[in-house]
Amino acid sequence: MDIQRLDKQITFSLEIDKLTGVLRRTLLLDGSRHENSAEHSWHISVMAMLLSEYAAESIDVSRVIQMLLIHDLVEIDAGDTYCYDAKANLDKAERELQAAERIFKILPADQARLVRELWDEFEDRQTPESKFANSMDRLQAMMHNYHTQGRQWRKHGVTSQMVLARNAPIAEGSPVLWEYARKLVESALEKGYLDS
Amino acid sequence: MDIQRLDKQITFSLEIDKLTGVLRRTLLLDGSRHENSAEHSWHISVMAMLLSEYAAESIDVSRVIQMLLIHDLVEIDAGDTYCYDAKANLDKAERELQAAERIFKILPADQARLVRELWDEFEDRQTPESKFANSMDRLQAMMHNYHTQGRQWRKHGVTSQMVLARNAPIAEGSPVLWEYARKLVESALEKGYLDS
Repeated sequence: MDIQRLDKQITFSLEIDKLTGVLRRTLLLDGSRHENSAEHSWHISVMAMLLSEYAAESIDVSRVIQMLLIHDLVEIDAGDTYCYDAKANLDKAERELQAAERIFKILPADQARLVRELWDEFEDRQTPESKFANSMDRLQAMMHNYHTQGRQWRKHGVTSQMVLARNAPIAEGSPVLWEYARKLVESALEKGYLDS
Repeated sequence: MDIQRLDKQITFSLEIDKLTGVLRRTLLLDGSRHENSAEHSWHISVMAMLLSEYAAESIDVSRVIQMLLIHDLVEIDAGDTYCYDAKANLDKAERELQAAERIFKILPADQARLVRELWDEFEDRQTPESKFANSMDRLQAMMHNYHTQGRQWRKHGVTSQMVLARNAPIAEGSPVLWEYARKLVESALEKGYLDS
């Protein structure tokens, strides 16, 4: 056994626990606190298992899940960037790239490469797996905002037009789920969870 | 599209968010708070991705990850049962079985059956995938206890003999990782994180 290899893998496994301390803008469904990126990653991985039948194209669900499990690791260094914060999004790519360089390279080189490939694929939204993975990421946030009566949307002045623009890529991963998501926005408007 | 089917899947996806409120006895690695079962499930799923080369037998990693993603869902109703609490473990199986009946059956019947099969397989520890999945579950808890200086072990009067007995099944999933885990126990004894 290569003890140095195992050491790197264990060090990485310890490092990623920090993702539990990265808070997102979304609330848990009971509204008690902000969701962290570790539990969010778990939640959308389970959703991918159960909703894969709605993918726009034939997908390898296992690859979708692996992408979702690692897609937020860069936030350990870069923090969670609120999708409606235009200023913070200006240097998001650069911050996350630096984070990927540091964090993934804790792993043995072959695994660092594999994780980097998964992360690049997720970010690029070109493959059927990536498109579906991104649908899960966005749909879950919409569900949380809707079922907490739009508290975070209202707090940050988010309008239905902003939500529709931000989440339109759901359609690329799953037309059926985009249809469902659009109905959530309509309902949110009716209930006053969102301004038009 | 079968709207009733999608409704059930979405209802289930909302229901499982409650796992974020189930606290385990283990602490996060920074010692700041107790870990919850959702972030724990995420953590060991990533570990399974990266440590699968140490499995005792050839495994389907994708199935291991699916098992780990859903293995703790029953705790939404049954709570987390501390592995060293003999009394609470007397009716653990019964409580978790009732939870599985209620929670999984929110899903459409075919998916309820699939999730139940995954959970049964995890609990039975008979297949190579289940043995490896259980190794991840136990190894991660040991790592967290060790790297928080055994605070929870000492608080609950857990001895090295208890830790070795509880975690011996790691050997069935991965002899290499059991060797690593035994060294952690030795080191914990030396450092006073554990009593013999």
